[in-house]
Parts: sequence; C-alpha cells; structure tokens
Amino acid sequence: MSTNAIVVSPIGSIRAQDGQFSVQVDPAYRPALNGLEGFSYVQVLWWSHFLDQPEMRQVMECEQPYAKGPDKMGIFATRSPLRPNPICLSAAPVIRVDLDAGVISLGYIDAEDGTPVLDIKPYYPCSDRVREVSVPDWCAHWPEWFEDSGEFDWAAEFVNAR
Amino acid sequence: MSTNAIVVSPIGSIRAQDGQFSVQVDPAYRPALNGLEGFSYVQVLWWSHFLDQPEMRQVMECEQPYAKGPDKMGIFATRSPLRPNPICLSAAPVIRVDLDAGVISLGYIDAEDGTPVLDIKPYYPCSDRVREVSVPDWCAHWPEWFEDSGEFDWAAEFVNAR
Repeated sequence: MSTNAIVVSPIGSIRAQDGQFSVQVDPAYRPALNGLEGFSYVQVLWWSHFLDQPEMRQVMECEQPYAKGPDKMGIFATRSPLRPNPICLSAAPVIRVDLDAGVISLGYIDAEDGTPVLDIKPYYPCSDRVREVSVPDWCAHWPEWFEDSGEFDWAAEFVNAR
Repeated sequence: MSTNAIVVSPIGSIRAQDGQFSVQVDPAYRPALNGLEGFSYVQVLWWSHFLDQPEMRQVMECEQPYAKGPDKMGIFATRSPLRPNPICLSAAPVIRVDLDAGVISLGYIDAEDGTPVLDIKPYYPCSDRVREVSVPDWCAHWPEWFEDSGEFDWAAEFVNAR
C-alpha cells in the first residue's frame, strides 16, 4: 500500500505574457540549471494549481473529453490537467538559458502565467523519444510529432478537456 | 514567488520482480485507467522515495555525473533521481492493461520494486515526440531513440548518477 502524503515545493513559476514564455527559477534553485545549455528541449513538470481542490482531485473519469473519443474516459488515459495529482508534463523548446537570472526562455508552453513549476529535466531522446508508438484508433489522426501539433486544429478535438 | 507546499499522494506503486514490471494502481484510482487500452506507451511519474531526505533535496549540483560530461552539473540538467522534488519521469512500453485488477504490465521501467507512483499519462506523440532535437556535444553519442537505449552501454556513461 502507498498512502503516505508527499510534500513538494515549487522551484519556480511559468511566465506567459505577450506571446513570450519562460520558466523563472527561484534564486535558491538557480545553481541547478548549470549545464542545461545545449539541450534544445526540456521536460517541464508544472502544477495545475487552479485544479488543486479536494473534490477535483477525486474525479477519476470525465465525460467524452475528446470529440472523437469514448463517451467516458479515465483521467489516466488523458492529459487533462484535472487529475488526482495535477502534475502536468510539457516538452518545450528552449530558446535560451540565463543562468544568472534563472530564466529558461521557451518557444512555447501550454501553461498559464504564474503556474508553479515542480521540476525541469533535459529532454533526452534516449529516454523520451519513442520511434514506434501507437495510439487508439479514435486519435490516430492526431499529429505524430510535437512540431506538427501547432498546425493542428485542436479546437475541433476537445469537448470537455484538453 | 512560489513558496507554498503542495501535497501529493501516491496512486499506486511499481512492481519490479523477476524481470516483470508493472504499475499496481490502488483500488480508489482504478476507474481512472478506463480508456488507457490502445496506447502503446505511458509516461509514468514516480517518486524516488529513497532520496526524499531534506539534505538530499537541497543538493543543486553534482560532481561529474556522466563520464564524458562536465565536471559539475546542475540537477536540472540531469535525469538523476536526486532532485529538489524527486519526481522521476519514465516512458514505458505497455504490454497489457488490466482494468479490474488495476495493473499496467510494462515491458520495462527503471524504478525499484515498491516505488510510489504519482501519475500515469498516455504517451502522446503530438506532445512527447520531438522530431528535431539536439543535445550537448558531450552526450551526442547517446542513442537517439528510446528503443535503442537498451543496447547501449550505459555503465560506461555513468559516474556518480544515472
């Protein structure tokens, strides 16, 4: 069994203003960025703080989150930010790392301004990039690569979640 | 600033015994697995509980974690399980999802038996699979795909971390 609570602390936050995106790392954690330069992508773990409500964290299924998907889906089968532990994962392209200021400038991240960030990891192709991957038929028409997602009409896909 | 503590709860744990790997999902969370069938990979967020010690969580840099890497590296530039918030991310191939038993059988996962699991997400190529990605010169010889990692001689790469 695994019932003990775990405490995590934000190490910084998202800035998303005027089409500019970054992770602002709190001063105490800035030495941890050393060596991140040269990685073209990072994996950002962020906390969906708006959904950190006891009743929301008890939701296990949602009604047809995707237009072409099943009528009902379990939360672990979606990337919805509404989850028992609302930790979201976003791969994000790195524009620049400013070690002194503690700022990772990103091409884009799908998180709101002020969102707490829990962790930053380099995107390792050997860990994160799967060559042969398959998905259920209902979402087989989704883009096959991160880079092609921006062009895709996501508005037509989402009903009750993202 | 982002100083408030956040509480997360394990939703299950890793079983890794006799070359068999799975996530065992606690009963309350099993409905959240509905619809996960058909995704060939999952992203597993797990808690490196052995490293959940106050002094370890204050470590920001490590001495040459990789044999061919810099003498000193920040934790956010590594995938070391020793981190301020020791949340680890593993993409893992799914063999089978047993909704009733709450078991996701995996081809492999790099986590010890009994490790708490915080979240399970489907691996979405459109979110997780980056076509054009680069890494620093010192690790440019690492495999370019998840599937090629198993054949790689990682023992020669790691000095003080993984």
